[in-house]
Amino acid sequence: MEKLYKDAKVLIDRVIQANMPQQAVRNALKNHKFTGNIYLAAIGKAAWSMAHSAWEELGDRIKHGIIVTKYGHSFGNIPGMEIIEAGHPLSDENTIAGAKKAVEMAKGLKEGDELLFLISGGGSALFEDPLPGLTLADIVDINKQLLACGADVVELNMIRKRLSSVKAGRFAQICAPAKVFTVVLSDVLGDRLDSIASGPAAPDLFTVDDVKEIVKKYKLNIKNTVKWYLEKETPKSLDNVESIITGSVRILCTSAADVAAELGYTPHLLCSEMNCEAREAGRLIASIARQINGGAHMFKRPCAVILGGETVVTLKGKGKGGRNQELVLAAAEGIAGIDNLLILSVGSDGTDGPTDAAGGIVDGSTAQRLKEKGIKIRDVMENNDSYNALAALDLLIKTGPTGTNVNDVAVILCK
Amino acid sequence: MEKLYKDAKVLIDRVIQANMPQQAVRNALKNHKFTGNIYLAAIGKAAWSMAHSAWEELGDRIKHGIIVTKYGHSFGNIPGMEIIEAGHPLSDENTIAGAKKAVEMAKGLKEGDELLFLISGGGSALFEDPLPGLTLADIVDINKQLLACGADVVELNMIRKRLSSVKAGRFAQICAPAKVFTVVLSDVLGDRLDSIASGPAAPDLFTVDDVKEIVKKYKLNIKNTVKWYLEKETPKSLDNVESIITGSVRILCTSAADVAAELGYTPHLLCSEMNCEAREAGRLIASIARQINGGAHMFKRPCAVILGGETVVTLKGKGKGGRNQELVLAAAEGIAGIDNLLILSVGSDGTDGPTDAAGGIVDGSTAQRLKEKGIKIRDVMENNDSYNALAALDLLIKTGPTGTNVNDVAVILCK
Repeated sequence: MEKLYKDAKVLIDRVIQANMPQQAVRNALKNHKFTGNIYLAAIGKAAWSMAHSAWEELGDRIKHGIIVTKYGHSFGNIPGMEIIEAGHPLSDENTIAGAKKAVEMAKGLKEGDELLFLISGGGSALFEDPLPGLTLADIVDINKQLLACGADVVELNMIRKRLSSVKAGRFAQICAPAKVFTVVLSDVLGDRLDSIASGPAAPDLFTVDDVKEIVKKYKLNIKNTVKWYLEKETPKSLDNVESIITGSVRILCTSAADVAAELGYTPHLLCSEMNCEAREAGRLIASIARQINGGAHMFKRPCAVILGGETVVTLKGKGKGGRNQELVLAAAEGIAGIDNLLILSVGSDGTDGPTDAAGGIVDGSTAQRLKEKGIKIRDVMENNDSYNALAALDLLIKTGPTGTNVNDVAVILCK
Repeated sequence: MEKLYKDAKVLIDRVIQANMPQQAVRNALKNHKFTGNIYLAAIGKAAWSMAHSAWEELGDRIKHGIIVTKYGHSFGNIPGMEIIEAGHPLSDENTIAGAKKAVEMAKGLKEGDELLFLISGGGSALFEDPLPGLTLADIVDINKQLLACGADVVELNMIRKRLSSVKAGRFAQICAPAKVFTVVLSDVLGDRLDSIASGPAAPDLFTVDDVKEIVKKYKLNIKNTVKWYLEKETPKSLDNVESIITGSVRILCTSAADVAAELGYTPHLLCSEMNCEAREAGRLIASIARQINGGAHMFKRPCAVILGGETVVTLKGKGKGGRNQELVLAAAEGIAGIDNLLILSVGSDGTDGPTDAAGGIVDGSTAQRLKEKGIKIRDVMENNDSYNALAALDLLIKTGPTGTNVNDVAVILCK
C-alpha cells in the first residue's frame, strides 16, 4: 500500500502542475505565431498568473495589458500591465471600471494588431459592463426573477449575456478589425466557449426568438430598455477570433491518464463531466472498484480508473467537508477489505468546500479503521462531516491553494 | 436510431432469457455428475421453476422433492414433489411447516445420497424454522431491537441466522453424510453464499465473539434461550457441500456483454454491484455517454457500456415509477443532443417498482421531445413520476413478469 500512496501523491502533484495557468498559457503560445502588435486582456481568478506567464514568454512584445481579477488575486506589478481587482462572485463598481478599460483598449486596436485574451474561472462576474442605459441592478433584478421562476442556468445566461456590452461575443466585435487569440482555462464542464465567462469572444448560440420564448414562458416583468436590448441580435459568427482551451477538466483527466500510464498503471478514462451528487458518485465508483477486484475482463491490475468533473453536495448537516472528501468517504465502505487499491478525489484548486484540504484518499482498510475509532461513516455523511473523519486517519489531501481551477478528478488506483 | 432500438430489444430479451431459472438449472446440471439417489429441496420465489427444470433434466432419478415458495408462485404438480406455499416477505406458519418437511427429508438421507438444493430470491423468509424453544416472534423481536439501534444488514443477519435451525450452514449439516449440490439464482449483490437465503448450506463467516460484540454494542435485551443459542458456534466448514451460482447480476452483465458483442458492439463491463441512488447513477452514466461522444480513447463506437446492480430510490413524490425508469429519465438530460446513442435500464424480474414496466429507454432526443410535450424532467423527478413521462413517449420497456430475479442492468448502446 505504501507504494500505491506514493504513486497517488506523484499523480496528484503532476496532474495539478500540468493544469496550472502558467502551463496552460505556455502550451497555448507554443504553437501560435503573432504577426502584429500584441495587446493583452486577462480576466478571471487566474488572470494575474496567466498574464504573468504570457509576459515571461512574450516580454515587451506586449504593448499594453489589462488584468481584471478578484480582490487579493494579484501578486505584484507586471511591466506594461494595468491590474484591476474587483468583486467576485458579485460584480461591483471596480468590475465595471476594469471592463471599461479593456473596452477602451479594444476600441483602439487596428488592423494587424492582435489581442491575447486570457480567460479563467470567475470571468463572468469579473468582466461586466451593462449596456448603455442599464445598470448592474437591472441585471440583478432580471436574474432574481428568473431564479424565482425556476429557470435553469442555460436560460439565465441566455438572457443575462444580452444585457452586457462585453459578453455574448461583443467584446471580440469591439476588437475588430484586430484579431483575438483566446486562451481558456475552463472551469465549466463540457468546455462550451459560449458559456465560459459568458463567452466574451464566442458567438452566441441563442437567437432573439429563443429569448422571446423565455420572456413569455416566465412572464418576465421587464422595462423598455431591457426589452429593447433583448430584441437586439447577438453576434452569430466572429471571423476575427481563434480560441484554444489549454486547461480544463478534460485535460486534467488526460493528464491523470498519462501520469498513471507512466507510473505503470493501465489508464481507463471513464468520463470528464461527472456532475451528480458526490456521495452517490463515490458509491458507484466503489462498485467499479469491486469489479476490478472481481477480475472483470476489462480492468486488469495494475490499472487506474479516472473520472473527472464536479460533483455536488446537498447539505444536510453542519459538519466540515467538501465534495471530494464526501465522495471518497462514501466509497470507503464499498471497497472495505479490498487489497492494493485506493480511491482518491481531488479538486484542482486545492480548496475542497470550505476546508484547507484539496480532497481525500481511502483504501480497503479505511472503513474498519474508522470503526475502530468509533467513527460511523453513516453518521459522518448525515452530518456532512467528511473532513474530520478523514483527518482522524490522516487521509486528507492537502496541496494548499494551487492558483488554478479546472474542476476535480477522482481516481481508482490499484496494483 | 431504429437499428439501435431494435438491437436494444434483442439484447434485453436474450439477456433475461439467459438468466431464467430454467436456464440456470440446466447450466448447473450440465457439468454435474450425480452418483447416488437424488433428493431435491427448492426454496425461494423461483423454486417451482427451478424444481420443474430439474425434473425435466433428471426425471424420476429424483426420489423425492420439497418445494417451498411464495403464495401464488407454483404452477402445477411435479411428479414426486411436495409443494408448500408460504408467506413472503413475512414468514408464517406455512414457512415453518415447509422447512420442517425439508428437515425431515434431510434427516433421512444416507451416505451416498445427494441433495439437489435449489435456492432463489426470497429464500431467507421462505425457509425458516426457529431453533427449539424459540418462536418466530423471538426472531422478530431481536430484529426490531437491532433496527431501532441502527444496526446494518450484515449485523442483522449475523444475529438472526443463529436463531434458525436451517440457516448458517445448519441445513447442510443435517443432510450429512449425504452430499449437497447447491444451485443458486442470486438476487444479492456480490453473490456471497453466506448471505443468499441466509446461507442454509454455507459456512457462517462470523464467530460467537463477533456476535457478543454486537450484543454488547447495542445493549440488546435478550432472553436466556436466545443468549444460549447466540453463544453456540455455527458451522465454520462444510465438507459435504458443493455450490454453483448459475444466475446472478454478474451473469446478467456478462450475458449483456456477450449479446452486445454478437450484435457488433464492443462491450465494456464497468460494474455489476451498482447500489447508489437511481437518478444519480443515471446522471453519472450520462456523463460516461458524453465521454463516448467526445471520442475518448477508451470507448470507440460502436460500443456497449454495461453497469449492473440494484440502485435505490429515495421516495419524495407520489408519482409512479421504478429505479430503472428513474435512472434512464435522469440520464436523458445529460445525453440531450447526442446522436446514435441510447441508454436503457431494465429489471430482470420484469417489474420495476410498483409498475407494469421492466424499465425504460432514452436517447438524445428524449429531453427535447418531453419539453415539447410540456413535461419538465425536473418536476417529474421531484414527484417520482418517471413512468408517466416515459409512457408519454412510448419509452417504457415492458416484458411482463419474467419469473427470474437477478437484479438490474443498465446499458449505453451506441453505434
